Amino acid sequence: MNNKNNILEQGATIGIIGAGQLGKMLALSAYQLGFKVAIFCPDKDGPAFDVTPLQFIASYDDKDSLKNFANHCDIITYEFENLPLNSIKFLEKIKPLAPSSFALSITQDRLKEKQFLASKNIKVAKYQRIENLTDLQKAKDNIGLPLVLKTTRMGYDGKGQRIIREEREIEKYFNQLSGSVLIAEQFIPFVREISIIIARNKRGQVREYDVSENLHENHILKTSIVPANISPLSAKKATRIAHEIVGALDYVGVMGIEFFVVNQDGDEILIVNEIAPRVHNSGHWTKAVCAINQFEQHIRAIANWPLGDPTRFADVRMENLLGKEIIDAHKKLQSGTNADFYGKTEIRSGRKMGHLNHIQFAKNNI
Amino acid sequence: MNNKNNILEQGATIGIIGAGQLGKMLALSAYQLGFKVAIFCPDKDGPAFDVTPLQFIASYDDKDSLKNFANHCDIITYEFENLPLNSIKFLEKIKPLAPSSFALSITQDRLKEKQFLASKNIKVAKYQRIENLTDLQKAKDNIGLPLVLKTTRMGYDGKGQRIIREEREIEKYFNQLSGSVLIAEQFIPFVREISIIIARNKRGQVREYDVSENLHENHILKTSIVPANISPLSAKKATRIAHEIVGALDYVGVMGIEFFVVNQDGDEILIVNEIAPRVHNSGHWTKAVCAINQFEQHIRAIANWPLGDPTRFADVRMENLLGKEIIDAHKKLQSGTNADFYGKTEIRSGRKMGHLNHIQFAKNNI
Repeated sequence: MNNKNNILEQGATIGIIGAGQLGKMLALSAYQLGFKVAIFCPDKDGPAFDVTPLQFIASYDDKDSLKNFANHCDIITYEFENLPLNSIKFLEKIKPLAPSSFALSITQDRLKEKQFLASKNIKVAKYQRIENLTDLQKAKDNIGLPLVLKTTRMGYDGKGQRIIREEREIEKYFNQLSGSVLIAEQFIPFVREISIIIARNKRGQVREYDVSENLHENHILKTSIVPANISPLSAKKATRIAHEIVGALDYVGVMGIEFFVVNQDGDEILIVNEIAPRVHNSGHWTKAVCAINQFEQHIRAIANWPLGDPTRFADVRMENLLGKEIIDAHKKLQSGTNADFYGKTEIRSGRKMGHLNHIQFAKNNI
Repeated sequence: MNNKNNILEQGATIGIIGAGQLGKMLALSAYQLGFKVAIFCPDKDGPAFDVTPLQFIASYDDKDSLKNFANHCDIITYEFENLPLNSIKFLEKIKPLAPSSFALSITQDRLKEKQFLASKNIKVAKYQRIENLTDLQKAKDNIGLPLVLKTTRMGYDGKGQRIIREEREIEKYFNQLSGSVLIAEQFIPFVREISIIIARNKRGQVREYDVSENLHENHILKTSIVPANISPLSAKKATRIAHEIVGALDYVGVMGIEFFVVNQDGDEILIVNEIAPRVHNSGHWTKAVCAINQFEQHIRAIANWPLGDPTRFADVRMENLLGKEIIDAHKKLQSGTNADFYGKTEIRSGRKMGHLNHIQFAKNNI
């Protein structure tokens, strides 16, 4: 930050932790806005390394390398939440960092996240902290089956979680996941999953995009549809909850918030499932049909620039390309499809390799 | 090109000649589509060098460096037309290159361009080849005053041209510009300037964006407004001419075509002013209000991928930030404004430092 208003100047260097597709897309938006970009990641094959000469390849707890990285940056951000909190706090002492280590400490831990949300009277699934098998037996009695057993940290795309549907699975799944603190959550019989992408800058300006509806395959996001098939009232409720969350965390940056929609006596009930302190897969549609997409918005937010208008120009369906679906996808591109191919060299089953935005062009858009 | 259909595969390396803002924005779109990017430019401070580790800094006629560059690329393109034709032909013998050296040879030379257009019965200003003062005297008699004297090559942003309004200026301006072949052109009393951005891929698919209206200050583009204030008939005519031009050149890539609009007895007459064999400043508005912008479209075109839908989602005004206008532009950003700041370190009067796209959001876009 180069001035008293904490406005990041053009030409400054933004450090991004993580070299995956989110880091890469953040970098491209940072470039658009006149910044330089440094990338820190232990994986030298991360696709974001293709787009910058400022490369820092080291372990996330290598303090010397972290310090060297920080010295090259004017501000630091990150593309995912599964980072050692100590390293983030270490960096935060050297350079401005957004979202803050406080926001990360809450959102990278399922238990803290649930406690935080509950303390703000935001509806979440019933949950219980699990340290041993006795806790889990109690949770079964209190919450009922089925329930979802999860590690409190490092989970994504369904990793680190098991659905316990029957009594006899309790011990087996506990043993599979135990090793650190776990959380047991009520299994929510949702009718759909939705999410909202919201941004807040340091001066407290907040902007949110339209709600998207998300379809998963094997716990991995496959499709986002905008607009979501929910009532205007539910969309307003999701927006209000999102505003509450970013405000309560004094959050800076883009955040993705996932909700379950539950049908209760004909009413739509929203239950927050998860918060991601970063740009989010279910916001990739903004790249095709918004003038300022979630990646630009994140950069504008952390730079403390005025946020951009989140207006959506068209209906859209975002389709993730998983594993081998990436092969020949460029040959099958449709005219009305905007593509992002991540440039990952290794194809693995279920790996996010790219996405397509299929745009619903109106007959007369203007 | 990695297969018999000449379709460039994801992961290939696109070489871009020139490290200015156009090269940079092309690089960002190439990254989006899963390519790697190598940049060749003699100016080590070119902003496009910020966005790639694959940097080739050498003179445009350094054959060894050109060869080394070509060996790192799967296909080569360029961001501007003022390049030594021999170097382009040299590269074209080593690797696929688009737009072709043939298209470049026509469009980088004002005289050849006019001859080419005239041979296709496309309306251009009256013109005459000028080698000496006698030629220019004759041109004055044939074409009349005022006339515009231009170098046939290396001109841009009004460089290398003089308007001769009076007899006594003939010798003075001739002496200022002479040294190579010149061209004298009729001065066109236009009511407005417009341009069209069109793309063609190797399989012959053609897509064009809406016509923009362009306002210049001191011969430098300042503002583009879309839609242009012309009749639907004129828009159709501009489109038809653009299709003719890319077809006749067997052109591959994005092209910008500038027209003068002349009012003749109440009719709008279109006169082609200039062709640019590249992405064009007057197409920057596509970044804010099209799902596939001119930079992505150029990459799709040269990769021989299906072209994208050029539908425009909103009315827009593109404003170039020249020289000192870049200072503090990020602090004044409006919510409805999409920004590109080029990251150039040195501010010079009239230099293109960035642009803003001011979007006219409809009350109800969808």
